[in-house]
Amino acid sequence: VMSRDEVVQNLAALELPNAAIVDSTASPDIVAAYPDYVKANMHIITPNKVANVLDWAHYESLMQLMRSRQKHFLYEANVGAGLPVISTLKDLIASGDTIIQIEGILSGTLSYLFNNYDGTIPFSKLVEKAHSLGFTEPDPREDLSGQDVARKLLILARQLGSRLDLKDISVESLVPKQLRSGNLPKDFYAKLSSSDEAIHRRYLDARARKRVLRFVGTLRDGKGTAGLKQFPLGHPFAGAQGSDNIITFTTKRYSHTPMVVQGPGAGADVTAMGVFSDILKLLHYLPY
Amino acid sequence: VMSRDEVVQNLAALELPNAAIVDSTASPDIVAAYPDYVKANMHIITPNKVANVLDWAHYESLMQLMRSRQKHFLYEANVGAGLPVISTLKDLIASGDTIIQIEGILSGTLSYLFNNYDGTIPFSKLVEKAHSLGFTEPDPREDLSGQDVARKLLILARQLGSRLDLKDISVESLVPKQLRSGNLPKDFYAKLSSSDEAIHRRYLDARARKRVLRFVGTLRDGKGTAGLKQFPLGHPFAGAQGSDNIITFTTKRYSHTPMVVQGPGAGADVTAMGVFSDILKLLHYLPY
Repeated sequence: VMSRDEVVQNLAALELPNAAIVDSTASPDIVAAYPDYVKANMHIITPNKVANVLDWAHYESLMQLMRSRQKHFLYEANVGAGLPVISTLKDLIASGDTIIQIEGILSGTLSYLFNNYDGTIPFSKLVEKAHSLGFTEPDPREDLSGQDVARKLLILARQLGSRLDLKDISVESLVPKQLRSGNLPKDFYAKLSSSDEAIHRRYLDARARKRVLRFVGTLRDGKGTAGLKQFPLGHPFAGAQGSDNIITFTTKRYSHTPMVVQGPGAGADVTAMGVFSDILKLLHYLPY
Repeated sequence: VMSRDEVVQNLAALELPNAAIVDSTASPDIVAAYPDYVKANMHIITPNKVANVLDWAHYESLMQLMRSRQKHFLYEANVGAGLPVISTLKDLIASGDTIIQIEGILSGTLSYLFNNYDGTIPFSKLVEKAHSLGFTEPDPREDLSGQDVARKLLILARQLGSRLDLKDISVESLVPKQLRSGNLPKDFYAKLSSSDEAIHRRYLDARARKRVLRFVGTLRDGKGTAGLKQFPLGHPFAGAQGSDNIITFTTKRYSHTPMVVQGPGAGADVTAMGVFSDILKLLHYLPY
């Protein structure tokens, strides 16, 4: 078996004019090797979010390297899997529109939880059910913490030229403080039930105002926030189904009602579609 | 002033390797000249729907000519203006998905009418109001007849390789039979009121079933249909706002819930965006 370094060296030795590496991992180790791939003359296509959420200095130096080597970096599947989110945002910007707000349900897990929560089952039980159905990460705190939403917001913010870092995104975690660190306790769901009453109160408050509760991420005025918010019944977020992602773009042109992209935003097949459409795009970008 | 033929001849004489004509008209005359532009070595970018709804034989021979001359034909703004509809459909197909159904609110005018109709104002009065607000074509029968929806369905169907013609799309016209031909009568809205009661009954029937009434186009099993249909309150179409277009793609991958693209689908600025994103796409497609 070749080491990662040997793989890069062997690829570089081939002097392929238009090669690309498709990083289908979620691994920081592979991202650490991106500069080597770029120097070995390769474009990069990936659903891996790690590179796009590096701290600003490392992110910017990687982008700088790619620009100087004229290498393409394509990551449509970073947000919404196969949904046309990154490409749409790039088109809006490239065609001269001004982005006023990007807001969305960016986590399939949190989408499922709040599309289905109606107070009849305690929130902690619903999370347990979602986990047993395979709708959450193995450690459900990764979803409940809102960190995945924050990462996607950061990726969208950086399309707008923002210099935000992950720590600048203000996130409401649904994991009680005493459960946030360490290994997942065996009685996690029993302990999570300590927040059932608070969630139920917020649900009832929204319902009394004829609103729904959704966990959304918002980019506006250069700031990123994520948390539970109320939306009126006619709002696109109220119509979310299953574990849909929904992303709304409010722009100078799309100001009266936003442009909305909605649909399943996770899963192997739709993620593969996002990656494959990037491969096709790269084929169009390349001169021969 | 040069004639159209002289313009084409002069352009051809320049022997530009990668020129494109952007047809920003709605004119059949310009479309009649597309073969000349293609033979003069030009790509074509347009929001004009006329070429894409030519009868099959003429359409296919034009496409054949473009393919044989390796010319790009880009028309994102044909459906939904700046919304990523055509490009998304092409990506779904190119990445190997199977399209099961495309269904949508494809007319901004009909979207506005049924998003706002609640029985308090007769339907004919609402059409008159929409007309006075500039939300309809100068002759509102062009919207009410559903023909514009049929054209967009045909364009989507042809992306799927369908050999349908416009006459094959089965459309429910909202224009009473006696008003369908001839010039627009001065008392059109008074005459249109003959259908107010029927529309009101259909609205009440939908409401009694906790449903909404929407004018939608549907492609399924190789057939295209357009007309008024009922949808449950949780359906994406029930959440349509203003004069939004909504297009849903149900595919082998997007089967549990569809992929949805929504937003304003008409207007100069958003149409210009669709055209401009095609120009950017062409720049990527071209080798130098």
